[in-house]
Amino acid sequence: MNIRRLSTRQPDFNSQLDRLLAFEATQDHQLDATVAAILADVRTRGDVALLEYTRRFDRMEVHDSAALELPPAVLLAAFEGLPAAQRAALEQAAQRVTAYHQKQLQVSWSYTETDGTLLGQQITPLDRVGLYVPGGKAAYPSSVLMNALPAKVAGVGELIMVVPTPDGVRNALVLAAAHLAGVDRVFTIGGAQAIAALAYGTATVPRVDKIVGPGNAYVAAAKRRVFGVVGIDMVAGPSEILVICDGQTDPDWIAMDLFSQAEHDELAQAILLTPDVAFATAVAQSADRLLAQMPRCEIIRTALENRGALIDVADLDEACVISNRIAPEHLELSVADPQQWLPKIKHAGAIFLGCYTSESLGDYCAGPNHVLPTSGTARFSSPLGVYDFQKRSSLIQVSAQGAGMLGEIAEVLALGEGLHAHAQSARFRMGS
Amino acid sequence: MNIRRLSTRQPDFNSQLDRLLAFEATQDHQLDATVAAILADVRTRGDVALLEYTRRFDRMEVHDSAALELPPAVLLAAFEGLPAAQRAALEQAAQRVTAYHQKQLQVSWSYTETDGTLLGQQITPLDRVGLYVPGGKAAYPSSVLMNALPAKVAGVGELIMVVPTPDGVRNALVLAAAHLAGVDRVFTIGGAQAIAALAYGTATVPRVDKIVGPGNAYVAAAKRRVFGVVGIDMVAGPSEILVICDGQTDPDWIAMDLFSQAEHDELAQAILLTPDVAFATAVAQSADRLLAQMPRCEIIRTALENRGALIDVADLDEACVISNRIAPEHLELSVADPQQWLPKIKHAGAIFLGCYTSESLGDYCAGPNHVLPTSGTARFSSPLGVYDFQKRSSLIQVSAQGAGMLGEIAEVLALGEGLHAHAQSARFRMGS
Repeated sequence: MNIRRLSTRQPDFNSQLDRLLAFEATQDHQLDATVAAILADVRTRGDVALLEYTRRFDRMEVHDSAALELPPAVLLAAFEGLPAAQRAALEQAAQRVTAYHQKQLQVSWSYTETDGTLLGQQITPLDRVGLYVPGGKAAYPSSVLMNALPAKVAGVGELIMVVPTPDGVRNALVLAAAHLAGVDRVFTIGGAQAIAALAYGTATVPRVDKIVGPGNAYVAAAKRRVFGVVGIDMVAGPSEILVICDGQTDPDWIAMDLFSQAEHDELAQAILLTPDVAFATAVAQSADRLLAQMPRCEIIRTALENRGALIDVADLDEACVISNRIAPEHLELSVADPQQWLPKIKHAGAIFLGCYTSESLGDYCAGPNHVLPTSGTARFSSPLGVYDFQKRSSLIQVSAQGAGMLGEIAEVLALGEGLHAHAQSARFRMGS
Repeated sequence: MNIRRLSTRQPDFNSQLDRLLAFEATQDHQLDATVAAILADVRTRGDVALLEYTRRFDRMEVHDSAALELPPAVLLAAFEGLPAAQRAALEQAAQRVTAYHQKQLQVSWSYTETDGTLLGQQITPLDRVGLYVPGGKAAYPSSVLMNALPAKVAGVGELIMVVPTPDGVRNALVLAAAHLAGVDRVFTIGGAQAIAALAYGTATVPRVDKIVGPGNAYVAAAKRRVFGVVGIDMVAGPSEILVICDGQTDPDWIAMDLFSQAEHDELAQAILLTPDVAFATAVAQSADRLLAQMPRCEIIRTALENRGALIDVADLDEACVISNRIAPEHLELSVADPQQWLPKIKHAGAIFLGCYTSESLGDYCAGPNHVLPTSGTARFSSPLGVYDFQKRSSLIQVSAQGAGMLGEIAEVLALGEGLHAHAQSARFRMGS
């Protein structure tokens, strides 16, 4: 395997790094037009259109919209049919993810000023959330837990899952995870038509307030288009890992951590930063040796050769600077005393500290969410969390005395902006 | 003035309410194409393109990109040149807005499990934020404070303001507010070209991580297009107020509250819900009488006649149900004992409790933010706040013992998903 070697000592390092990181989702105008037509059609014709698209795209012989819903007994049966080890692992993961996310729960707050004026925020859960789950090979039960459990912890009233079942094939692990996570209703629909049904509602599928979950290019384009009608989570790019290693971790471990990102798909990005040149060479040798054992070796090879890199850095300080420039989705600090480097890390979706913390532990069961900002968006966004399923309303209760004091300020500023009704509205309350 | 009267007792009330609320931002494909071209041009040609567009659209004779920046002394002079009353009002408003937003500051947290595994979130401010401020008549100093101060409270490293100055005309109040709010740099650019400069950076304008602030249709379209390259705040629709009144507030006060929303622009929406039919009539009479005193009476009349309504409801419980359906930007609960109704209010950007709390006090100086979700998006989004300028990184530090326990779970789930590198990566750490 031929993984790119770079060094910050190279004079053109910055431009090489830019090229390595360059990724821009191409906007496909034809796809976008197709999606727009599907959205408009489902919005207008509701269930009739939804059934048509499901017959066409998923080759399902459905003619009755009620048949699109999976009854709870089907989910329960999927859960009870799991091998004991899988069932136990799912349950333990769900318990840990729930416990972690409970720490994120925000509560209403207020304070009262000396003149009796009360200020604060009322924090409430969303009423109804839609969870998109892809069909086929990219359907991950862990993703069902990671998207559904924060919504449940937030207290979302109703959680609606959509999952396409092309040719009628269902994924038992996904349905079992839906049961475990407390999903309220499941519809076997997918693609842009499922996003339309969730955003606008049909006679069968209730309208939701926010849509979360991963999907293909059609789903992503549909989510972008309904943004504003409903809330959406991020539209994710290819997955990435950046490993900073001081050279003291087993090179096999680091090579496998790079693989675990690369095996997701050919566009995934895995990069190592190390001040130890010999260690980088050892990791490359480990990768060569370990690759053959991997069932997804061709995906791993393609990802690492096209988008991977082993980068020599001057020291760990420089590694932190480069990491902040990349703002990686996953960052492993596989170094001695990793906590000391935390204050230097400004942008990362999740930080995995110390040599025992493989990214895969975080993907499944450590507790934190595995839905993370990609493509450098950790500069301004956060992991999916309970806070994505709560919203705030400002609270303002002005006392009679407060209305006098605040009214004088508001009147001056309103007149300065030429808004006389604002000024008069404040003035009416001033003499009271 | 002819404000629409509705009643929930009318058999077609629901469809009438739907028509009243219907507002969809039209997508203008020509405008969108123009914006796309400007973004691409500034991204490619940088300052040269930025200067060209500024000469063309703002009729500014600028040929040196350094001339696009206003030195701090200009902001200071604007502030010091204010009349004493305006200066004091701005200072008091800024102090109150800052004090309120400090309550929103989130801090990093973590906890350690019995086996030594640490989990948490590191919370950090954004590095650099861009604040768009419109030029001309729609430029509000209060908006500068409301957008800039939460960023400063969050600890944002650098705050870059852009404000077009068509024909060289500057708004002294806006510049004074920028000084007061601690804006770090100000560029006299606007439109899609300013959004492009902030999102991609030019030799003169530094690239930011997030762009906030209101703007016209070109600015809104540009913000939508750069979303993902940078973070953006919401894209706001027309402003709205919903007043729920038990009939005990002075009808002049309520009429003026409706005016204060309607005077923003012809598309603004102002609605009253009351169980007291005679009170609704009294408010209509007050509106007729008070209208003539308003400098912006034609805007107020158009907004109220086209998009306003006085709605008779059976009781205050029904008013809350309708309010939740509307999910208003501003909600006045002008009723006795307003706190008792709070648990029934699920969706609203800001809630103004009691007869002394006019919306205008919240717009300027009560403390909470006046940037609020519009068009029913309060179902899933929140007021602008300090949390919009902070981001989170998950923290995971697994102990040697924890790696054994978590590895077993991760291995089972990874194999269930067919991800063998994930499983192996966990397994490597298990025997340690």
